[in-house]
Amino acid sequence: MDFISVSKNDDIATITLNRGKVNALNEIMVEQLDDCFNDLESERETASVILTGQGKFFSFGFDIPEFLSYPKDDFIRYLTKFTELYTRMFLFSKPIVAALNGHTIAGGCMLATACDWRIMVSDRSKISLNEIGFGSSVFAGCAEMLGFCTGWKNAVTILYSGAMYSAGEAIELGLINMVSSEEDLINEAERKARDLGGKDNAAFSSIKGLLRKPVAERMIRRERESIQEFVNIWYSEKTWKKLREIRIKI
Amino acid sequence: MDFISVSKNDDIATITLNRGKVNALNEIMVEQLDDCFNDLESERETASVILTGQGKFFSFGFDIPEFLSYPKDDFIRYLTKFTELYTRMFLFSKPIVAALNGHTIAGGCMLATACDWRIMVSDRSKISLNEIGFGSSVFAGCAEMLGFCTGWKNAVTILYSGAMYSAGEAIELGLINMVSSEEDLINEAERKARDLGGKDNAAFSSIKGLLRKPVAERMIRRERESIQEFVNIWYSEKTWKKLREIRIKI
Amino acid sequence: MDFISVSKNDDIATITLNRGKVNALNEIMVEQLDDCFNDLESERETASVILTGQGKFFSFGFDIPEFLSYPKDDFIRYLTKFTELYTRMFLFSKPIVAALNGHTIAGGCMLATACDWRIMVSDRSKISLNEIGFGSSVFAGCAEMLGFCTGWKNAVTILYSGAMYSAGEAIELGLINMVSSEEDLINEAERKARDLGGKDNAAFSSIKGLLRKPVAERMIRRERESIQEFVNIWYSEKTWKKLREIRIKI
Repeated sequence: MDFISVSKNDDIATITLNRGKVNALNEIMVEQLDDCFNDLESERETASVILTGQGKFFSFGFDIPEFLSYPKDDFIRYLTKFTELYTRMFLFSKPIVAALNGHTIAGGCMLATACDWRIMVSDRSKISLNEIGFGSSVFAGCAEMLGFCTGWKNAVTILYSGAMYSAGEAIELGLINMVSSEEDLINEAERKARDLGGKDNAAFSSIKGLLRKPVAERMIRRERESIQEFVNIWYSEKTWKKLREIRIKI
Repeated sequence: MDFISVSKNDDIATITLNRGKVNALNEIMVEQLDDCFNDLESERETASVILTGQGKFFSFGFDIPEFLSYPKDDFIRYLTKFTELYTRMFLFSKPIVAALNGHTIAGGCMLATACDWRIMVSDRSKISLNEIGFGSSVFAGCAEMLGFCTGWKNAVTILYSGAMYSAGEAIELGLINMVSSEEDLINEAERKARDLGGKDNAAFSSIKGLLRKPVAERMIRRERESIQEFVNIWYSEKTWKKLREIRIKI
Repeated sequence: MDFISVSKNDDIATITLNRGKVNALNEIMVEQLDDCFNDLESERETASVILTGQGKFFSFGFDIPEFLSYPKDDFIRYLTKFTELYTRMFLFSKPIVAALNGHTIAGGCMLATACDWRIMVSDRSKISLNEIGFGSSVFAGCAEMLGFCTGWKNAVTILYSGAMYSAGEAIELGLINMVSSEEDLINEAERKARDLGGKDNAAFSSIKGLLRKPVAERMIRRERESIQEFVNIWYSEKTWKKLREIRIKI
């Protein structure tokens, strides 16, 4: 079963998250995404990538109901895969444009911050790292990518509040780069993907690495410990209770 | 003799600096603050902390006249305690809200930047890291906390100029998060302390560490050398002469 | 043959880039600049430095036509000298004000970001790190200094686009600190040089180091590898072809 679909248009590959009504992330979907980026990295005819979602969500984040059935060790295995996925995306040698078609929440927002450029619909969709609201922490890589994206002052605001931001607020905070109407979203994303993909790839990839490698080094050095801390909080009585109460309203 | 007072209101502990007319910091006061934060860290009934001052100053910073009588080794001992205090505050596991009731100068401003959120009165009070104005340096931890708080561009502006900023200017620079009338200051600080203290503490503490530990690692690695350099400049003929001319006008 | 000239006015030393119509950087010019900063560092009567250019350019950047005749090893030797020059400037113990009299491009922009304060003419001059436009990468030090100067979000925008910015746009991005008319440029630069040079030098130098040394450590650690990567791209067939097509229009 495929939880993502990939289409090609000239030298742009578009990955669409496509799992249920909210594109909630589970282990198979994360594996499929990782394989997909791995393939696209070496595919000569692909110059740039767009990551978007099907429906009213870009992604709800982790499929919490599914993970509530995971024993701790299995969950750690999933989290390791998930953080490796966003690290691969953060260092991906080709441009990745996030076309945020709808709500972009928690783990979904982490994937978005790993991209090179973010455009979001101007409708009622929200973007949020809302973990603190249900008693969960995040990961070292999440904090590092967010700080790189928005600066530390705004990263603190975003993570301490767990607030749901409109596209207009998100652009002020530096969480996204552009706001678009729903109908123009893919056109604008393709325009940017064509622009960045049209640069000399060796130069782009080198410059991206010069900007991001020190961040990625900190991510990698700190990730395992942060996953352990995340898991300890996740399975604590108080947080577990809140996780069980989470319902997805669409 | 107590240079600080602590009051409790529900689960908020409010620490009030209370030493003379300007809350100038000396060694005993720094020890009392360090002990107080140490106690509050483990106190189960305390969810968050407010740090404020009595009178027209939050704090003038170091009690320079008193320190002019200190031999170099004693001054190094004090500086080590002071930098350990702000490092403890920077990594404190519960939220600390700084309620800047008046002038917030030099060492006083460093304590403020260690907090999670800063609110300042809109009267004629000023906030400043004015060390360069009297020929003094600062500390590695001060530079790191400021950069984390305001971004490096504004940190350079603030430290190179040593300027006295109004609350309005301070919010533009990212030095503070909110401006308040004098009468609303404590209410607003309590509102924020209740908000942050109301988050799941394990999640808050973990997220705070993810954001701040890399900064704190650099602070700790660089602090001893920066204290040595600070002291060499402090006891130089030119700076010593300026320090002796400092008068506190209130 | 001198490609720079130095004049003294009170305790301000003004270095003027003076090579051809566009002040293109070559190896001798970089050596002269490095020697000049080395001399000014220890010269007691110099409190601050202004770096400016002669004509319509601050600097075009590298003298590409000249470097096209360089064998790889010689080019690596030049790049090592160039990156050592900007690292020396970035850590220079006295204030350096960049008075950007005209177009400030590529390597010219890197020298500007190494300074403590940047003022730029409000005419049609542009500032740019346009390397990606001709298929070239930059250096680790360039990325680090830019991030320190503008924050990482704007650094990404600037390096990914390679866009030519007006002074007004550059101030928005944090690339420069002030815009000036052509006739006021040197006066304003001298005013700032006098201001910063009037600070206690030991305090200024210490504070500058506290802010910049962690950045410089990363620059130095990463520079050699980044030069190697830069050179591999520079001598690639695609980039070489673009380099040969570069013409300087003035």
